[in-house]
Amino acid sequence: MIEPHHDGSPLCVPGGRPRLGDEARVRLRVPVRDGVVRVWARHLEDAEPRYAPARLLGEAGGAAWWEARIPVRSPLTLYRFLLESAHDAGPRHTWVSAAGASRTDVPDASDFRLTTAGGPAWATGATMYQVFPDRFARSAAAEARPVPEWALPAAWDEPVVPHGPEAARQFYGGDLDGIRERIGHLVDLGVKVLYLTPFFPAGSNHRYDAQSFRRVDPLLGGDAALIRLTEACHAHGIRVIGDLTTNHSGDTHEWFRAALADPHADERGYYYLRADGSYESWWGVPSLPKLDWASAELRREFVEGPHSVVAHWLRPPFNLDGWRIDVGNMTGRLGGTDWNHEVASLVRRTALEARPDALLVAESTADGARDFQGDTYHGAMSYPGFTRPLWAWLASGSGLAGGRRVNFFGTPLDGPPRVPAEDLLAEHRAFSAAYPWDVRLHSLTAIDTHDTARAATAMVPGGQEVAAVLAFTFTGMPLVFAGDEFGLEGVNGEDARTPLPWDRAVPRDLRPLYRGLGAQRNAEEALRTGSLRWLWAEGDSLAYVRELPDRTVLVVAARGACAASLPAGLVPEGWEGAAPALAVGPLTLRRAHDGGTHLGAEGPAAAVWLLPGPALPF
Amino acid sequence: MIEPHHDGSPLCVPGGRPRLGDEARVRLRVPVRDGVVRVWARHLEDAEPRYAPARLLGEAGGAAWWEARIPVRSPLTLYRFLLESAHDAGPRHTWVSAAGASRTDVPDASDFRLTTAGGPAWATGATMYQVFPDRFARSAAAEARPVPEWALPAAWDEPVVPHGPEAARQFYGGDLDGIRERIGHLVDLGVKVLYLTPFFPAGSNHRYDAQSFRRVDPLLGGDAALIRLTEACHAHGIRVIGDLTTNHSGDTHEWFRAALADPHADERGYYYLRADGSYESWWGVPSLPKLDWASAELRREFVEGPHSVVAHWLRPPFNLDGWRIDVGNMTGRLGGTDWNHEVASLVRRTALEARPDALLVAESTADGARDFQGDTYHGAMSYPGFTRPLWAWLASGSGLAGGRRVNFFGTPLDGPPRVPAEDLLAEHRAFSAAYPWDVRLHSLTAIDTHDTARAATAMVPGGQEVAAVLAFTFTGMPLVFAGDEFGLEGVNGEDARTPLPWDRAVPRDLRPLYRGLGAQRNAEEALRTGSLRWLWAEGDSLAYVRELPDRTVLVVAARGACAASLPAGLVPEGWEGAAPALAVGPLTLRRAHDGGTHLGAEGPAAAVWLLPGPALPF
Repeated sequence: MIEPHHDGSPLCVPGGRPRLGDEARVRLRVPVRDGVVRVWARHLEDAEPRYAPARLLGEAGGAAWWEARIPVRSPLTLYRFLLESAHDAGPRHTWVSAAGASRTDVPDASDFRLTTAGGPAWATGATMYQVFPDRFARSAAAEARPVPEWALPAAWDEPVVPHGPEAARQFYGGDLDGIRERIGHLVDLGVKVLYLTPFFPAGSNHRYDAQSFRRVDPLLGGDAALIRLTEACHAHGIRVIGDLTTNHSGDTHEWFRAALADPHADERGYYYLRADGSYESWWGVPSLPKLDWASAELRREFVEGPHSVVAHWLRPPFNLDGWRIDVGNMTGRLGGTDWNHEVASLVRRTALEARPDALLVAESTADGARDFQGDTYHGAMSYPGFTRPLWAWLASGSGLAGGRRVNFFGTPLDGPPRVPAEDLLAEHRAFSAAYPWDVRLHSLTAIDTHDTARAATAMVPGGQEVAAVLAFTFTGMPLVFAGDEFGLEGVNGEDARTPLPWDRAVPRDLRPLYRGLGAQRNAEEALRTGSLRWLWAEGDSLAYVRELPDRTVLVVAARGACAASLPAGLVPEGWEGAAPALAVGPLTLRRAHDGGTHLGAEGPAAAVWLLPGPALPF
Repeated sequence: MIEPHHDGSPLCVPGGRPRLGDEARVRLRVPVRDGVVRVWARHLEDAEPRYAPARLLGEAGGAAWWEARIPVRSPLTLYRFLLESAHDAGPRHTWVSAAGASRTDVPDASDFRLTTAGGPAWATGATMYQVFPDRFARSAAAEARPVPEWALPAAWDEPVVPHGPEAARQFYGGDLDGIRERIGHLVDLGVKVLYLTPFFPAGSNHRYDAQSFRRVDPLLGGDAALIRLTEACHAHGIRVIGDLTTNHSGDTHEWFRAALADPHADERGYYYLRADGSYESWWGVPSLPKLDWASAELRREFVEGPHSVVAHWLRPPFNLDGWRIDVGNMTGRLGGTDWNHEVASLVRRTALEARPDALLVAESTADGARDFQGDTYHGAMSYPGFTRPLWAWLASGSGLAGGRRVNFFGTPLDGPPRVPAEDLLAEHRAFSAAYPWDVRLHSLTAIDTHDTARAATAMVPGGQEVAAVLAFTFTGMPLVFAGDEFGLEGVNGEDARTPLPWDRAVPRDLRPLYRGLGAQRNAEEALRTGSLRWLWAEGDSLAYVRELPDRTVLVVAARGACAASLPAGLVPEGWEGAAPALAVGPLTLRRAHDGGTHLGAEGPAAAVWLLPGPALPF
């Protein structure tokens, strides 16, 4: 897989994020042996294609570098490359887009995308740690709090209920001070951002059925505990983001109760309430009434201006650093009605007014690219571009874990199917192509979350470790769901919300691995902002590099015992004789007689080499 | 290429266009030998995926038919299929979307799209004939009219100027009565829709630089001539559509002159006029000032309500049957400003209020799918889904015609490259997938237009005839650019606007072919609304069928001498011994010893067989 490459990284777009009115320089790397004689950057101006001729900058390491200049006339610039090589039977053409190289033309959805605005620098590629507050840790005060009416109290080491109505009512009583008391654990892992699932008062352990967006649940310690937590995190260089449900509230929310109580209440318009008392709700679940964003009052209360919910928590004394938006894809959408983009734009404007460096990521479980084009959220929490194909590559293929079916992202399949590495790459490209580069760097790169099975359960033994190496060396913000570092298991989201085993034997202590990955991520700029160039993806093995002008990080992984011959010229120079900076499992590279590279593994394995950058003289 | 198939045709979506609140039945055809054991229709509800299990209806002709029911909750319903087949190493999965079958998942852009509203029945798949009024025919009255100041008068048989400032000023003086006098020619070819490029007064022969949108150019005979023409056409069962420039006007337009004359004029806001007198214009051409759709006055005057320009010409006494919108993709777009969807929605509403059965098609030269999602125009005039890959398949590969460079759709390439049939299919699928089925049936299927080189010039000798057979047997509205039927030539749009050779020798008289194609199109419902299922696309040959329950139309084409072996079971039964209903060039099918089909051609050739339909018993 020696092929043309471009992305939005400093190596390919020198000068960084452009401003309106700039000319952006876009650089394409082409294998010299492809014999390319002409290159154009095809870009869109007011939706009409233009072709900017590129010039050959020079050659280095078997690659020719071409550069074109394209005008930045819009906050979002779409472009791709057209390459011509000479052949006896006439010229041949290749299109290079974010979906890869193709000899046939591709629709605009695959275009590279440059944005003039993007996510905050502190979040770019930063490691995120996700905490489900009921299950992380319990402070002394928590022990003393009365159990609410809805809750079924559980002892900390009791098994979670994975299905049925009790799953949401099982109450372990973790709280915010419990998290604060364990902050050393986050520091130890190199975490840069703490992401809290909802902290609002609710009628369930997950708290996505908020009773108010204006108070921290007293069961979690109330407002004061959140202030203590953000202050402690900030003192340790850790940012904190909350979780906001813009699609629905709980049916015991103060707004919904007001709406039910008085047909003339403003809150009546916040929901899709019909005269017969029925209403729209998330997936038809009555406890989660859907918000109607046609309501100007709802907008003012929730997402508009300095007194809105969105702004309230970003300002002192809470000082949250951003939001993760729940059910971002469904928000404001109902049948033919679509307020989604409007709501997202308002959330963005309000959040950035309250706090110019706020981070906004939104959940979008499937293909969400159209909702992330630079003018809404900074990043996505999505599965099809990384998590889902990663599972399928590292799955056992049986679909079962201990005889129980593993939920595969809500599909009706009997667990993750087992697919070769080329399929992982194909799906990664297909689903990440339409995200602007900056959005990719601010999107969550998760091997699992609070809404999925655990990687340890979905994957072959040793697969989670390989997955973690990939997540921590990939584009985006690596997301660790609390408990991954202890090898926790779970066949679905509910089952995966095991209280953290602070005081008992853990399935596997992966803290050393996560610590190493976190430290490497923090040390290596190339892992956070570098180019992502795939070298190899075939069957049981894959390899890619993350590159900046002065650094190449080589990542090689295998899902099991395998032997592969990588062609000469593929793997960048410098790895030979060098020990990997980080490795899991038995994996070796060696030079083959033909000048290529032999990749061998005895089981699931991955290794990371730190090499000099391509150091281009142009 | 025996593969799963679905599209929006009656065979696959029985019951026709659904209504809001319906459940749509969606049927998938799967080769029996694929061993598929489970099928789901994955559809989106408020942007969240759901999986509706399909049931096996039965088997017929080597195909298993599965049916799922999906709710129609929105004017636009997106769906695709997920297939599971059992294998020793675990289940395997295939996704079937409008882009074809794939073992990896595909983004929503490829989803099948059902719409609850669509284009008028009279236009569905109807044959369209495009006239550039200055070049079609000259009435006796035209001979007597004074030549305008801007014009360089030309004799009817004088060669056209293909480049430079004189190209737009060369004036042959064709007029609307000239068209009316030749209406027998249109009837003879089986034309159902006459599409007139602009008839407004202007300062050029193309008239895209309108001086007014309220008058027919006196050089064309004025308003009265248009009324005479539409009446004559309607009397012959031919509809008429006009050409409206919503992106810009001419710089001598009455609005623009008013804007320049008075800084306080309403018309000032119609344009992007700056204090220094400079202004935005189409491609920077000063004679085409761009319209600023932020102006409410412009909207009222042009596209809103019964007195707007849009409505004016659709109502008596003009009774136009619809519009082709010029530069649809750029309209309302400038840098980060985008009024495009809003303007298109207004045009639609106003046109359908004035005339509920109006047809609206808009130019969108590149990937326009996002602008055609059922709530704007009924169809597109676009190139990448058909015209462009067709040229590349039928091109000589030299890029030259008589030593002159053939313009390849505005790309910087030296004419059309030569590509194999699989590339034609790949680009057709890639660029047509994201159009709803109904939009595809109301989009123009052109082998050339007034804006391109002529097919006869772009293609190998005999290629135009093959291209015409494909256009007239494909989805969409076949578009004949006046003069194609005489084999006219031209290396670019300007060069292609040759006055019609009524009174002199024609390059090739293709009227018998076009007459046959038009008659067949009018007789065969399957060609207008049937399923489009590809059988074969490899190198020099291709084959597909258009299907309704009671009719299969088999189309086979070759671009030159070739021999291909199509596997058994591919070509539907019934062709053996049957003569093609229509054929160009030397092409034969015969049964091979292995049960497959041998396809042979001696040169560019195409043939069409009319066969019984699949007659499914379910």
